[in-house]
Amino acid sequence: MIIRQIRITPVAFLDPPLLNAAGVHQPWALRAIVEIVTDEGLTGLGETYGDLGHLGKVRECAQALIGLDVHALNTMYARVTAIVGEDAQRVPTASQERSIDRVFSAFEVACLDVRGKAAGVPVSDLLGGRVRDAVPYSAYLFYKWAGHPGAEPDRFGAALDEAGIVAQARLLIREYGFASIKLKGGVFPPDEEIAAIRALHEAFPGVPLRLDPNATWSVETSIRVARELDGALQYLEDPTAGITGMAEVAAAVPMPLATNMCVVTPEHFPPATAARAIDVLLLDHHYWGGLTRSSHIATMCDAFGLGMSMHSNSHLGISLAAMTHLAATTPNLTYACDTHTPWQNGQDVLTPGTLRFTNGSVPVPTGPGLGVELDRDALAVMNEQYEKCGIVARDDTSYMRRINPSFPSTRPRW
Amino acid sequence: MIIRQIRITPVAFLDPPLLNAAGVHQPWALRAIVEIVTDEGLTGLGETYGDLGHLGKVRECAQALIGLDVHALNTMYARVTAIVGEDAQRVPTASQERSIDRVFSAFEVACLDVRGKAAGVPVSDLLGGRVRDAVPYSAYLFYKWAGHPGAEPDRFGAALDEAGIVAQARLLIREYGFASIKLKGGVFPPDEEIAAIRALHEAFPGVPLRLDPNATWSVETSIRVARELDGALQYLEDPTAGITGMAEVAAAVPMPLATNMCVVTPEHFPPATAARAIDVLLLDHHYWGGLTRSSHIATMCDAFGLGMSMHSNSHLGISLAAMTHLAATTPNLTYACDTHTPWQNGQDVLTPGTLRFTNGSVPVPTGPGLGVELDRDALAVMNEQYEKCGIVARDDTSYMRRINPSFPSTRPRW
Ligand SMILES: [Mg+2]
Ligand SMILES: [Mg+2]
Repeated sequence: MIIRQIRITPVAFLDPPLLNAAGVHQPWALRAIVEIVTDEGLTGLGETYGDLGHLGKVRECAQALIGLDVHALNTMYARVTAIVGEDAQRVPTASQERSIDRVFSAFEVACLDVRGKAAGVPVSDLLGGRVRDAVPYSAYLFYKWAGHPGAEPDRFGAALDEAGIVAQARLLIREYGFASIKLKGGVFPPDEEIAAIRALHEAFPGVPLRLDPNATWSVETSIRVARELDGALQYLEDPTAGITGMAEVAAAVPMPLATNMCVVTPEHFPPATAARAIDVLLLDHHYWGGLTRSSHIATMCDAFGLGMSMHSNSHLGISLAAMTHLAATTPNLTYACDTHTPWQNGQDVLTPGTLRFTNGSVPVPTGPGLGVELDRDALAVMNEQYEKCGIVARDDTSYMRRINPSFPSTRPRW
Repeated sequence: MIIRQIRITPVAFLDPPLLNAAGVHQPWALRAIVEIVTDEGLTGLGETYGDLGHLGKVRECAQALIGLDVHALNTMYARVTAIVGEDAQRVPTASQERSIDRVFSAFEVACLDVRGKAAGVPVSDLLGGRVRDAVPYSAYLFYKWAGHPGAEPDRFGAALDEAGIVAQARLLIREYGFASIKLKGGVFPPDEEIAAIRALHEAFPGVPLRLDPNATWSVETSIRVARELDGALQYLEDPTAGITGMAEVAAAVPMPLATNMCVVTPEHFPPATAARAIDVLLLDHHYWGGLTRSSHIATMCDAFGLGMSMHSNSHLGISLAAMTHLAATTPNLTYACDTHTPWQNGQDVLTPGTLRFTNGSVPVPTGPGLGVELDRDALAVMNEQYEKCGIVARDDTSYMRRINPSFPSTRPRW
């Protein structure tokens, strides 16, 4: 099954003003849809970041993969490394490993989709077979404005204090049935976020809660907050920056620490495990090099006694399908996964109906490959939105500064 | 592709009197051949240990896998765990993880063989695609008697000193073209084995050499021998027992240390890497839980900066094919692999011709699945040999003691 063509289509979809440590989500979120077409006419789907720099690398690498068999993942990885590795050397601030894995991932998922379709089996079967029929996701709460400045309020409304956060949780849980809750923190002073977690704890007794301030806190603040939230959090995610800082916090606090920031390549495992910096790894196949490599990382987590959950950026249904197949086949991924799905508010590039939430979980697609189908009309619309939206890279900070020019970049902020 | 039948056929083949730390190889080596037959009539091959205790577990587990799809590896692993895990609890000396992985492996390889056949691709394609077209193996030298006591000398002749070892190396290199050499040590006092390595170093300048005394040495002896062999060894394999002992040796000697003894399950990675006990891991899919799990281990080795080679027990061609597919798809497996193939002296259960050595390497089979074919007549003959040979478990020590009743079991021996 030889790759004859790879189509890369950047897309944009409406995104609410979700607040986070970096600023606020822009009105449009970007992704890129990858279609791999084989000599036998099969098409495999992948989804990746839509930022222009990344898009350029994906397009350059796509050309280098034409003519390869869809099984030749090691060769693909080597070709991506040859192209992106050089590029990373030209941009010394970029993490080389991460760029390679980020670019490779979209192609790997699309190849697995093709192979599943050819074999008549779901991608989960190519990853060892599912150990659960549905994958639990968490309600991913954000502080947010009522709407983007100058625009109408969106249907989610404002959430700028604990009452707003609890109301948002009720909405997401009513609509999706989530049984775990994650709050994106790092937005307001820690005491306000403590109050929000306490309010959630009271409003949803017994529901596992997580808080992720994206490393905006000092070690001291992290320890103080964590101790105040003793008994209220399932885990605390990235309170502070870096393996060393996380290790200091981990040694002093009562709950597990999770990360998608200080362990993001295999090379981070030796220092992180030696320092006992984390208890839970949030896997993300988009930057861990695809589904197969992510399953290797799961074995590593198992060996080192790390729990597993899944990280999410703003994404569409192809990514949700891939995440679901991966989580379904990873026995030790036992924490509910993150997803931004509610915030895409029904927008998608897929034919509706395949992916749905039942009691907060997504049933694993059982059709061949990823088990989802591209809606070409929707893709065309979203591509047009990309062309017109005027955004070529995610930049939450610049957007925030247009509204609040004094938005600080100091870290730790508290 | 549902598993309808699993045939387990124990076999025995003639084995020369190879000396090692445990004693001497018995006249017959045992293996078990696994055939998985699907509802569509495809057959997948696996090969595993033939010892009676293991055979019983494999047979018991085989029954529990009937009716599963060949992709359902996670479910198979869970079923094997349920059966073998319980058994391991009844036998407190057994390593539970290892038993599960040992039993599971034979089925996993056979399932990959089926899936490759169904998809019309080699097993290497199911493992990410080959990064090398041929896999280099090493000349695996053994001290040995001329023949088994009471029997005619075999064609390899005696090798009981450095001259015999050099002659044996010349024979194996002439016949197979090996470009690396491994000597099984732990047989004679260390100074004799030092002399053998020095003789090999002189006779084969530039050819990488390894010595594996199977943990018969104390830490002190290991350090002394290693220092004396500075510059002569590519790596020193398992000079002493245990992660702690290996770490002490590693800190004091000039060459890398390799192991297939102190790191044999994923759980050994944290203590071994923390202690910097080893530099090279010898992978063996037979006890690391099959080919897919072995590829996870390779990622772990890469992350922790460990080099990789491959371990071997006496085996037949199905195992050689599986080892070759795995090594061909593991980019960081850069050391030539071990194999006992020369010692099987042409005996096999496969139709001749698929697997061959060229310049010490085995070209990766390119046919569907493992790319090898079972010779049912040869299988029947070897099964008959198994029934008649009177050996049901490998026991090098008891066999040695029939010849040399005072053969010591003390460890470290030197
Ligand atoms: Mg996070
Ligand atoms: Mg060894």
